Amino acid sequence: MLHTLINGVSCRHLPVIDRGLHYGDGLFETIACVDDGLQFWDEHIARMLHGAECLGIDPAAINYFNDDVTTMLQQHGISNGVIKLMLTRGQGERGYRSPLTQKTTRVVIITDLPEYPGSYITEGICACFCQYPISKNPRLAGIKHLNRLDNVLARSEWQDEYQEGLMLDDTGNIVEGTMSNVFAVSNGKLFTPSLNYSGVDGIIRKQVLSIAQAQGIKTNITDINKEELIRMDEIFICNSLIGIWPVSSLDDANYKVGSITQSLFESLQQQMRAQ
Amino acid sequence: MLHTLINGVSCRHLPVIDRGLHYGDGLFETIACVDDGLQFWDEHIARMLHGAECLGIDPAAINYFNDDVTTMLQQHGISNGVIKLMLTRGQGERGYRSPLTQKTTRVVIITDLPEYPGSYITEGICACFCQYPISKNPRLAGIKHLNRLDNVLARSEWQDEYQEGLMLDDTGNIVEGTMSNVFAVSNGKLFTPSLNYSGVDGIIRKQVLSIAQAQGIKTNITDINKEELIRMDEIFICNSLIGIWPVSSLDDANYKVGSITQSLFESLQQQMRAQ
Repeated sequence: MLHTLINGVSCRHLPVIDRGLHYGDGLFETIACVDDGLQFWDEHIARMLHGAECLGIDPAAINYFNDDVTTMLQQHGISNGVIKLMLTRGQGERGYRSPLTQKTTRVVIITDLPEYPGSYITEGICACFCQYPISKNPRLAGIKHLNRLDNVLARSEWQDEYQEGLMLDDTGNIVEGTMSNVFAVSNGKLFTPSLNYSGVDGIIRKQVLSIAQAQGIKTNITDINKEELIRMDEIFICNSLIGIWPVSSLDDANYKVGSITQSLFESLQQQMRAQ
Repeated sequence: MLHTLINGVSCRHLPVIDRGLHYGDGLFETIACVDDGLQFWDEHIARMLHGAECLGIDPAAINYFNDDVTTMLQQHGISNGVIKLMLTRGQGERGYRSPLTQKTTRVVIITDLPEYPGSYITEGICACFCQYPISKNPRLAGIKHLNRLDNVLARSEWQDEYQEGLMLDDTGNIVEGTMSNVFAVSNGKLFTPSLNYSGVDGIIRKQVLSIAQAQGIKTNITDINKEELIRMDEIFICNSLIGIWPVSSLDDANYKVGSITQSLFESLQQQMRAQ
């Protein structure tokens, strides 16, 4: 399945002078549509609005995504799929300078929901540490922008032997997975890396933090280095498509699916079913 | 003037699932065509080949750019213009993982040569320091890739009051201009920032370094902070379209067009005319 809509028009091609291509000058969101439910839609839209503000991209077009997606889902009779939204600064003349009047480009792409083995949830996944260091920039940290060479190059370090790779910054602190955020549990406390210099401020990460708070689980958003992570009792990753996946192995270290991971997983599932 | 060629076909649109758009997963070069001469073509192609190796992008298509450009110039009777080459990893399924078989996308865009006031060369330009910090990543440093949000956001700090802004890293060292490399002269010695963690390994930067060597000018490729740069005797910027522009003011500090800048400028002009 591949359905595409550009500025509200069914279309598979985009002008080659779009600044999204030339500079990665834009934002994206990846949203799961499950049984007709657009999971955490409002949160995704809020993050894109925040990203547009940070990058100085005209946010007006973001209001149209809801109509775009609703129309596409109805038109093609889709109940389940991956919705990718992109917003770029639009076409521009040569050069980095933004056009005085932005005509942003909004793109919707709908593809099939990926199918994963059930064991990724019940037994956990295999993860590795990536050699590739994630870029640092406090002005871009947290934003889901289109400059994603870090993720591409880190993901190129393995094929099928792992389900995720964890990325470290140049000081050796864990930031995130190539496609997920990372959590760990030690002595009943929940830990996740701070994202002040790199990484994406994940929607599911936020949900997990709020579920943990509601469950009275103490949480530390902090620097975590490789050795500290390896010694943790439980590790899991999360994103909008996979929900929560426990990590059963991280390079040579092995982990069981722990009780806090399990409890957070169940609450998240409930929230997702309610969407 | 706008002429575009995608994979050898005259075309203004590119598939919306291209990884160049989604991830900035590609490379580019900007080449001046002056009086039928493609300036430093071999050097630009060599840099793109090196970039492709660093990013793991299939370099095969790079061989076709020469034919692409020659054909376009002849067909449209163009003697002067800006040639932008882009090479992306091509179309892909959802996710950061590279397709097992890459079908790269090669793009050529030809636009008018920009016209600049002669005073930019004879008297110099006004430059500022950008507040926006450039991203750091040794694995991406030097490469002319399509992840250019740094340049876009730094360039958004001013409109017409400056001709260039200089970008610093998070330790306060100068890296480059938003569209140029930076040189300075102090006590007859030439200085330019090292590009180990950020910045683009400019073609004209390399030419300037080799001219300086030929002229017996001592050169330091090193860390230079803001205060050190301000105290220099001469400052200039360079890129493939502007050649060399002396800097006459940098925020509140003023500079004359110095003799070493002048001498390097003249030798570079000679080299460019010979292309």
